Amino acid sequence: MTQRVVIVGAVAAGSKAACRLRRLKPNWKITLIDEDDLISYGACGIPYFVSGDIPEEAQLRSTSYHALRDAEFFANAKGVEVQTRTRVVSIDRKTRTVIAKQLETGAELRLPYDQLLLATGATPLRPPIPGIDLDGVFAVANLHSAIEIRQRLTRGEVGTAVVIGGSGVGIEMTEALADLWGIPTTLIEAESRLLPKLVDWPLAAMVEAHLRDQDVTVHTGEPAIALAGGTPGEPIRVETPNRTIAADLVVVATGVRPRSELAIAAGLETSDNGAIVVNEHLQTSDPLIFAAGDCTATRHLLTGNPCHMPLGSLANRQARVAADNMAGNRSVFSGIVGSFIMKAFERCVAATGLSAERSRDAGFEPEVALAAAFDRAHFYPGQEILILQMVFDRRSRRVLGLQAFGPNGDAVLARVDAAAMPLASGAIVEDFINLEMAYAPPFSTAIDSLNAVASVADNLCAGRLHTVDLRRFIDWLRDTDQEQQWLALDVRPERESAALVDRIGADRWLAIPLEEIRRRHGELPAGKTLIIVCDAGARSYEVQVLLHSLGKIDTLVIQGGLHALRRIAPEIFRA
Amino acid sequence: MTQRVVIVGAVAAGSKAACRLRRLKPNWKITLIDEDDLISYGACGIPYFVSGDIPEEAQLRSTSYHALRDAEFFANAKGVEVQTRTRVVSIDRKTRTVIAKQLETGAELRLPYDQLLLATGATPLRPPIPGIDLDGVFAVANLHSAIEIRQRLTRGEVGTAVVIGGSGVGIEMTEALADLWGIPTTLIEAESRLLPKLVDWPLAAMVEAHLRDQDVTVHTGEPAIALAGGTPGEPIRVETPNRTIAADLVVVATGVRPRSELAIAAGLETSDNGAIVVNEHLQTSDPLIFAAGDCTATRHLLTGNPCHMPLGSLANRQARVAADNMAGNRSVFSGIVGSFIMKAFERCVAATGLSAERSRDAGFEPEVALAAAFDRAHFYPGQEILILQMVFDRRSRRVLGLQAFGPNGDAVLARVDAAAMPLASGAIVEDFINLEMAYAPPFSTAIDSLNAVASVADNLCAGRLHTVDLRRFIDWLRDTDQEQQWLALDVRPERESAALVDRIGADRWLAIPLEEIRRRHGELPAGKTLIIVCDAGARSYEVQVLLHSLGKIDTLVIQGGLHALRRIAPEIFRA
Repeated sequence: MTQRVVIVGAVAAGSKAACRLRRLKPNWKITLIDEDDLISYGACGIPYFVSGDIPEEAQLRSTSYHALRDAEFFANAKGVEVQTRTRVVSIDRKTRTVIAKQLETGAELRLPYDQLLLATGATPLRPPIPGIDLDGVFAVANLHSAIEIRQRLTRGEVGTAVVIGGSGVGIEMTEALADLWGIPTTLIEAESRLLPKLVDWPLAAMVEAHLRDQDVTVHTGEPAIALAGGTPGEPIRVETPNRTIAADLVVVATGVRPRSELAIAAGLETSDNGAIVVNEHLQTSDPLIFAAGDCTATRHLLTGNPCHMPLGSLANRQARVAADNMAGNRSVFSGIVGSFIMKAFERCVAATGLSAERSRDAGFEPEVALAAAFDRAHFYPGQEILILQMVFDRRSRRVLGLQAFGPNGDAVLARVDAAAMPLASGAIVEDFINLEMAYAPPFSTAIDSLNAVASVADNLCAGRLHTVDLRRFIDWLRDTDQEQQWLALDVRPERESAALVDRIGADRWLAIPLEEIRRRHGELPAGKTLIIVCDAGARSYEVQVLLHSLGKIDTLVIQGGLHALRRIAPEIFRA
Repeated sequence: MTQRVVIVGAVAAGSKAACRLRRLKPNWKITLIDEDDLISYGACGIPYFVSGDIPEEAQLRSTSYHALRDAEFFANAKGVEVQTRTRVVSIDRKTRTVIAKQLETGAELRLPYDQLLLATGATPLRPPIPGIDLDGVFAVANLHSAIEIRQRLTRGEVGTAVVIGGSGVGIEMTEALADLWGIPTTLIEAESRLLPKLVDWPLAAMVEAHLRDQDVTVHTGEPAIALAGGTPGEPIRVETPNRTIAADLVVVATGVRPRSELAIAAGLETSDNGAIVVNEHLQTSDPLIFAAGDCTATRHLLTGNPCHMPLGSLANRQARVAADNMAGNRSVFSGIVGSFIMKAFERCVAATGLSAERSRDAGFEPEVALAAAFDRAHFYPGQEILILQMVFDRRSRRVLGLQAFGPNGDAVLARVDAAAMPLASGAIVEDFINLEMAYAPPFSTAIDSLNAVASVADNLCAGRLHTVDLRRFIDWLRDTDQEQQWLALDVRPERESAALVDRIGADRWLAIPLEEIRRRHGELPAGKTLIIVCDAGARSYEVQVLLHSLGKIDTLVIQGGLHALRRIAPEIFRA
């Protein structure tokens, strides 16, 4: 029997569900409603439109074959009716009617439905601080704000910029402003590190160092507490507890919240943070009303708890499942492990699963293994270093998460994508050691970096490898942690270690190459903890094992070696 | 208690196991034996040394920190004794003694062992044809033959070349000769397509077309039946049933066989093809003798049968497990799904799991889904097309394999590596539809290509999508299959379809854009099967569904659309 389906929201989940449903049910009446006139766009592409990498906003709203996805397109190509500039006011569940208002005319629409899909998305959080509504302050809410930012840039109205929020979008917008437009940009983040919910300190520190290297000013641990100025001819003053920063443009990227007002008003169940609760068929508490995308809570497969992960990819996958179930094809969306990836200037950072910090919050007792490994055969031209951090539970050996930092390109993607499914299925460290990764010298290494970081985790679990906290070691070298009775032991060839011995001083940086340790270990001073360092950490581990067998047990290894140290503290370790 | 471990073979598995064992057991006596003087090298890098991409052979034998992995290195850095130029003659299992001969002196060595590891590798198969031992005919057996080939190239002695065997190594060697050296090269393969054991016809045809595009002459279905000539000043004549090809250099790449003579002579169990049988701890039928790498049979996780997969990555993973078990740390190697990847000039081809053909051999009833999808957001600069083929069992919906063809780079790697673990764990089509793939526009698409090909499989399983055999369609257009009452329906915009209507003729190539089908479907002729075609296949599927709902049921879709067709038959479809 022909059904009437109404879909509220026509960006990612809504338009995907409409198209899928049309293919499953060619004769159903499908109506898509959106309060905006711009629909069905790739919101994740906004930073690249702002940067100019994508010349026209219409590209974000076009198909891969260059058809503009507007209401006419949906009518002709998809057979889906779209009502744009139409705001849904309420849902009458008793009469199964959506009540909406056409924004241009003020006219009321009453749309009866047999099934309803809520794809209302998410709304940027605007911190409740003075001046947040000043002209020149933008959230990356939708395509309109992106167009307005781009116009100001094009007109030369932006001399300096501040981005509030070191989230993924905040960093992408920082790059958009600072890189192609060359605008001096300051990024401020209230938490003590960038990407606080996504990665742990070492990777966040690498991203931060890279941003600084690209001439971005970064202040972490600094919330914006007020915005002032911003009248014509006068820049906005962004105030933090430590300073005032002038900016012609302020981008607020402090997260989003689910748009669930309609659902709440209709009496549908929502979670603590306001996300619409759905079952694994993406049905809300009303079985005739489905929800998908950024407005919903989904299950985290590692914690078992509901979580809110506003991602375009997730919205699309959920939309398909929702449409299948609406069409009567029983289909399941079981949850996520939370894979994310982003470009940050010349680098790529990605993660899947839980960070160590979030693992702890979820009740695990995580440890971390860090490896610096080549992305392709070390003898193959053009190879680069990947930094991988694996988070795991030492007792159960279950792997909880993977974080990666590397060159801009797909090498990081490959490792994070390979890790997601094992994480979801409860894989342990051994499963990652033996994970089958395709190998040829132009693409990978015989022991893939993902296998390698799992081997580090295994050595930690077995108590064979003892490591130092990277942050404390760097603090010690920066003289902000002087308590430690430490001595760095650099086991690289002397031609490589000599520069650091000179720079740091032989009292703190001792050099004995790996090949000479067996012969020269008598030179090692007693009473100090040796912090063993090499390029990547592998030789350091060998030396630790060797020294242990020779009776010297007070040693710690720098995980990831100088590859990691250089990426965190280039001012100390730059070659 | 200190043990004596002897390891026979010091290339990949042997040297890896020695190093791992040394770290686990710092005081054991570990002896590595190899008949060669060149050891511990990256054999998979040989084609890139021959090509000149890797300037010096020593790079293949060096660590990532540029230390040459020779006997002295193993002694000083690893504490492992290496006996090079030493051939193991026999194993006396009763007295636990390895009997070896020093090749330089002829002296006999008797090495007692507590545990023994066989890492004897594999030997190139040399087809039993006349002339196979002529001067100028090389198997890529080891570094010595690679050095000799490179020297002949450097001295300008190679004007033309023939590669026998369209395997991975054969194609890599073809590229090495034809690309950087610019040598006119002919590749011949006895089977009807390239990479016959690894990929199915569509992908093999894409590789073949790309090789031709790079000016390689390719003859498939042509075995070499004799080699002649090759005296000084005279080229070798390679004879096939169809022609004689002159070549100054002939590379034989027709596969390898496990080197298991020692194991057989010692009475250890071997499989039908001569591979050493090991259990999941990599123990042979003698529990004190382990084996790892190319000399062993491993379990295929999809068929459950033993298989022989000579891969450097597998050798390394197995070596770690063998060393762990020898050290008393119980460790398991459960098997493989057979992931492989290779560069072919400007392209990359990869696969994991079973091809359709091998699935059939293994008793499955496979079907295939093929998708052409962007590797990154279609609006992001520099995106390219990936071709993915998923092999699945229609009834159980179990996914059996994935094949991929795309630009040289890591995009293909990411999809194949993401697929391997789900394949090993019995994932079905739905698992791949919802597989969590990290998304940001510079790296991927909101619906990843791997999700997309699984959706195609789902549509096939559900009987919603009906596809044509690509090969038959191309044969029909080439006039070698004239029986079909077919008419191609090109649903792209007319500005795009017009050229093919002109070239192929309106009697066989009809153009009606997707947007006009609802209005113009009355123009479609009766009595013919419509073969619906677009760029990627997605619009064709929509049109098929739409026409079906309008009563026109005799339609078939070109999977992968013109993206696939152009890559297989560029002479017909090149834009």
